[in-house]
Order: sequence, then structure tokens, then C-alpha cells
Amino acid sequence: MIHNRYVRLRSRPCGKIGQDDFELSSMALPSPEQGQLLLKNRLLSIDPGVRNLLGAKEGYLPPIAVGAPVTCSVLGEVIQSRHDAFAEGDLVVGRGMMGEYSVVTPDALCWKVDKASAHTLSNALGVLGNTGRTAYFGLLEVGRPEPGGTVLVSGASGSVGSLVGQIARIKGCRAVGIAGGEQKCRMLRDEFGFDVAIDYLGKSDEELHAAIVAACPDGIDVFFDNVGGRVLDSTLPAMNFGGRVVLCGLISQYDGASPPVMANLFMIVAKALHVRGFLLPQFADRYDEAVAFLEGAIARRELYFREEILDGLEAAIPAFVRQFNASTAGKTMVQLS
Amino acid sequence: MIHNRYVRLRSRPCGKIGQDDFELSSMALPSPEQGQLLLKNRLLSIDPGVRNLLGAKEGYLPPIAVGAPVTCSVLGEVIQSRHDAFAEGDLVVGRGMMGEYSVVTPDALCWKVDKASAHTLSNALGVLGNTGRTAYFGLLEVGRPEPGGTVLVSGASGSVGSLVGQIARIKGCRAVGIAGGEQKCRMLRDEFGFDVAIDYLGKSDEELHAAIVAACPDGIDVFFDNVGGRVLDSTLPAMNFGGRVVLCGLISQYDGASPPVMANLFMIVAKALHVRGFLLPQFADRYDEAVAFLEGAIARRELYFREEILDGLEAAIPAFVRQFNASTAGKTMVQLS
Repeated sequence: MIHNRYVRLRSRPCGKIGQDDFELSSMALPSPEQGQLLLKNRLLSIDPGVRNLLGAKEGYLPPIAVGAPVTCSVLGEVIQSRHDAFAEGDLVVGRGMMGEYSVVTPDALCWKVDKASAHTLSNALGVLGNTGRTAYFGLLEVGRPEPGGTVLVSGASGSVGSLVGQIARIKGCRAVGIAGGEQKCRMLRDEFGFDVAIDYLGKSDEELHAAIVAACPDGIDVFFDNVGGRVLDSTLPAMNFGGRVVLCGLISQYDGASPPVMANLFMIVAKALHVRGFLLPQFADRYDEAVAFLEGAIARRELYFREEILDGLEAAIPAFVRQFNASTAGKTMVQLS
Repeated sequence: MIHNRYVRLRSRPCGKIGQDDFELSSMALPSPEQGQLLLKNRLLSIDPGVRNLLGAKEGYLPPIAVGAPVTCSVLGEVIQSRHDAFAEGDLVVGRGMMGEYSVVTPDALCWKVDKASAHTLSNALGVLGNTGRTAYFGLLEVGRPEPGGTVLVSGASGSVGSLVGQIARIKGCRAVGIAGGEQKCRMLRDEFGFDVAIDYLGKSDEELHAAIVAACPDGIDVFFDNVGGRVLDSTLPAMNFGGRVVLCGLISQYDGASPPVMANLFMIVAKALHVRGFLLPQFADRYDEAVAFLEGAIARRELYFREEILDGLEAAIPAFVRQFNASTAGKTMVQLS
């Protein structure tokens, strides 16, 4: 019987989340059932998207119950396998528990990590994992940018957004990023290679729209949106006719406290826009293609992936909460010994 | 020199429009320039979509200036042609003036009417014109319904919506319509053949959502939206994974007075929805296909088109304003002698 220390949801947050909404706890872990794996977690992915699962509403997964473990993407070593495709000792990425161990049921978000790969484990969980694959399929399959086009990215200093801008540049597009604060905007230009960076902090909706128009003199062909709300609303009138809006996340709305007023949705009609949401598992049969592209771009030094790796389970709660204070950039992970 | 009596925009309406925002006036009509046609209007199409052009914001066309003629779709007889493809005496549908005469520049919304056709002129302007073509391409090309699927239509008693429901049924779908009031809901079932009708009047957002869920036990595959706002927001959580939302119009938002609060946009991500706006001219090279389908369906008595034809230019202003009082159904036109 394994005792698992883990992060559990203490109360259902309404509005801004705080560390008090979570607590460390410990539980006797049930043995994996037929078809499941028991993992010793090595790395936890700290993703703002998990915020969706903390509200009372059904999102892309059922809500996490108060008192239940917080789930997240993990990289772990198989210490017990009851699934034919996995053996003890395998390294696996999967949807697990924010804790020392996870019981995982392999699905479209679960795969074996190549131990012979030259890449680090954090790369396997991040740029070659959900993050990089989401950026790849979201931009190229949902957004379908064309060389010479303009790609606007919100949440551009985040783990997915920073990759989207770079993939857009690799594909011959002009990349414009929106982020909060001068420091992040400098990062967009200097580290991630965006052509232009827009700081949304301190700007009214009209000022934000004007800044977007100024940064995109040929209009916007593809908007990759991680933010939603007023950022989306201010962007719609600057889209080109027939443009694509890729909805990857709507971090501004995850707290559910203040649903946004959308004044410009008619632009979807007037400009014949395609607005599409997507989830990574829709592209599960093409993961190899994404990984080959990402590995190639990393090898050619065309893709830079910013990682912050924190130590120990105690770091998970503050790291998760910090995602919503606009104070992080790139990908945050927690390493367990 | 022709003196043209016409409807002009008297003041830029804010919020609900009224008859005072318009007035009848008279002007000396300029001669058509090279490439243009002078039409004697026989029928004026009274479309709520024109409301978009009365605000200060750029929509699908530039706003109509205060004091300028109100434009609309017309059917008229060519009395002077300076375009090689048209001759005097031709009957033409085009984007013209809400008045006795129009000067028209042929474009993707302009075509010759077959005088030998057995159809009435009002059919040529309506069910075989922009209205029917919009319903056809919007539902079948943008919405792509599959037999056995559920198609939800808002503004379902309107000129486009009433055809969309019938085309959905022809294609083997279940058609559910939303309209305002018991009389219109009866019309949806009895005249237009919808499987179920939902009355949105007097319902809170939660009640509307619950009514939609109850009317669509298998979820919604295609939502054809003419309304936007709370109707759209209440529908999103009832969509099936990968469903399509066709944005044809957003009549609830045309007054620009109270942009809607949208609480459920994350459903676009969580359910991987396709939300698409469109404009009829995008399908200009396939008009023949739509007309053949619509004529066939009319001949087989599978398609019922409700028309209200009013007499004289004086009727145009009250008819247009009435579109926004939820008191009309089907297609309204004005006939000029």
C-alpha cells in the first residue's frame, strides 16, 4: 500500500484563486485496476487550464470535487503496470495527480517517453508534450496560417503562446504578441522573436484595439487566443475577411466571476471569420508529425522553450496560483525526487 | 432627369429604432455611370440586416450616412443600362435604394431574373433570391448537417430561419426552432414543419437553456443563429462536441445599445466547436445550385415561403421598424406600382 502526498482542492474558488483554496494531504493510493498504470511522478506540469476544472460548471472534463485530488499532466516512471502496452520502468506522460504518485488510465493524452532521446524529461513533458503539440496543431491545423500572413497571439509569453509565435515565424508569418507588462514584452521580442509586442496592461479597450491595429498594418489573418474576454473582443474588428480565430484557452474567464461583455461579435459575420476551439486529443493520430517538427526546430535552434522547474511538491500550490498573477512566463513544472 | 422618392436616414438611431429615424424624401437621380444600371424598382426587400448599416460602426458594409438614402435589396426593371450584360427591359435583383428608382452597380448580389420563369417576382426576390440562397449555403455549406442530426434555428419564424428549418428537414435532420411568442411557435410547427418550437419570451437565461436541452435530447449538431446575445450564450452548453455554429445575423445586438454578456464562450474550446460567420457573395459562383435546389423543393411542395407584400413606398418605413418589434414572420416586401 502506497501513501501518496498530493494537492487537494480545499474549497471551490470563486473569482481569483488563492493558496488557501488548496492544501497538501495524504492518502492510501488504491492499486491500479486492469488497464491502469501506477506512476511515481517525476515532473508535474503546472497549467492554468486546470483552473477550468475547479469551477462548478462542466468544462472539457467534469469539475474536480471539493476534497478531491487536483489533476494535472505528469511525467512518471511506471512502478506497476496492468496495461499490456506499458512495462515497469517505462517513463510515461499522462493525465495524473498533482502528487508524488499517480494512477493513470492510458488515453489520447498518455504516451511513453523515449528514454534513449537526447531531450530532457522537462522537454518531454513540455515542448515535446502537450504544450508543444497544442501549439503545433492549434496554429497549423486550426489556424492554417499562410506565409506572409500576420499571426496575432495573446498570452504570448506563456508556454503555448511563446511557441505559437515562433512556429508562425518558422512558417514565414509575421508574429505579433500580446502580453502583460514591459518585461514580458521585452521577452517576446528578445527571447521568443516576435516581430512586435503589445502590452495590454493599463490600456482601455479602445487603446488596446488601437495598439493591435497599429501593430498589424495588414490586418490579422490568424488570431491564436489564450485569453478571451476583452482581448478577443478588441481583436475581432482588426481581423481580415475570412480570418481564423483559434480559441486555445480563455484564461481571463476561468474565474467565472465576471463573464465578459462582447461588443464586437458581429464582426464574425461581417468578416466571415472562422472561430474554432480545439482539444489536443483530436489530433492524437498525428502526434508523431508534431514531435518530428518540434524536435527538428529545436535541433536547428529555431525554437526556444523557456522552462521554470521548481523543486518539491510544496512548490506546486504557489506555482499554480502564480499563473493567474501574470507573473510567470514560459512553462512551469515541479520536479519530485 | 428622374425625380426619385426614397427613404432616407434622418438620424443615427441609438438603441431601438423608430419611424422618426427615417423620412421620405425626393432627389434628382444622377444618371448611371459606365458599368451601372438605372432600375425602376418593382419590389423592395425589407430586411432586418439593414439595421447594421445604420450604426456608426463599420459592419459588412460602410455605415449609411445621416441624410443619405437607405439601401436595400430590390427587384427592378432596367430602364437605362450602361453595362454590357444587361439590357433595357431586363428584370434585375440588386442592392439598390429604398425608393422608386435605384442606380445599381452589378456585383455578386446582382443578377438577372428569368422573365420566362413560372415563379412570382416576390419569389424571385425572396425564396429564390438572397433569402433562400442565404438559408441554403448557410445551412448546407457552413453548417454541414448530417442526416439524423439535430439542427437548432433561432429567429426561426423569420424569412431565412423558416427556410433553414425546412431545408434541415429535407436533409433528414430534426429541426428545432426558437421564436418569440406562442403564435409564432405555432407557426413554426404548423406552417414551417419544425419538429419542436421553443418560445424564448418570458424565459430567464437558465430557463431558455433548460428548454433548449429538453427540446434537443441528443444535443445540437448545428446551430443556425440569427439572433446572438443570450440566445447564443444559452445554446453553447447544449452543443455536441465538434458541432457547428452558423452565425447568419445577430439581430439582438444590432441596436448596439447593450452589448451582451457572454458567460459560455469557453464551451467553444471545451466542445471544440466551429463558429463561422458568412456572407452570401462568398458563394456567388454556386448560385445556380442553390436556385435549382430551391425551385425543386418548391415544386415538390417541400418548401413553404411565407410572404407579406405591402403596397407603396409609404409602407417601407413602418415595415422596416416592425421587424424589430418581433411582430413579423416570414419575408416582408414592399411593392411599387
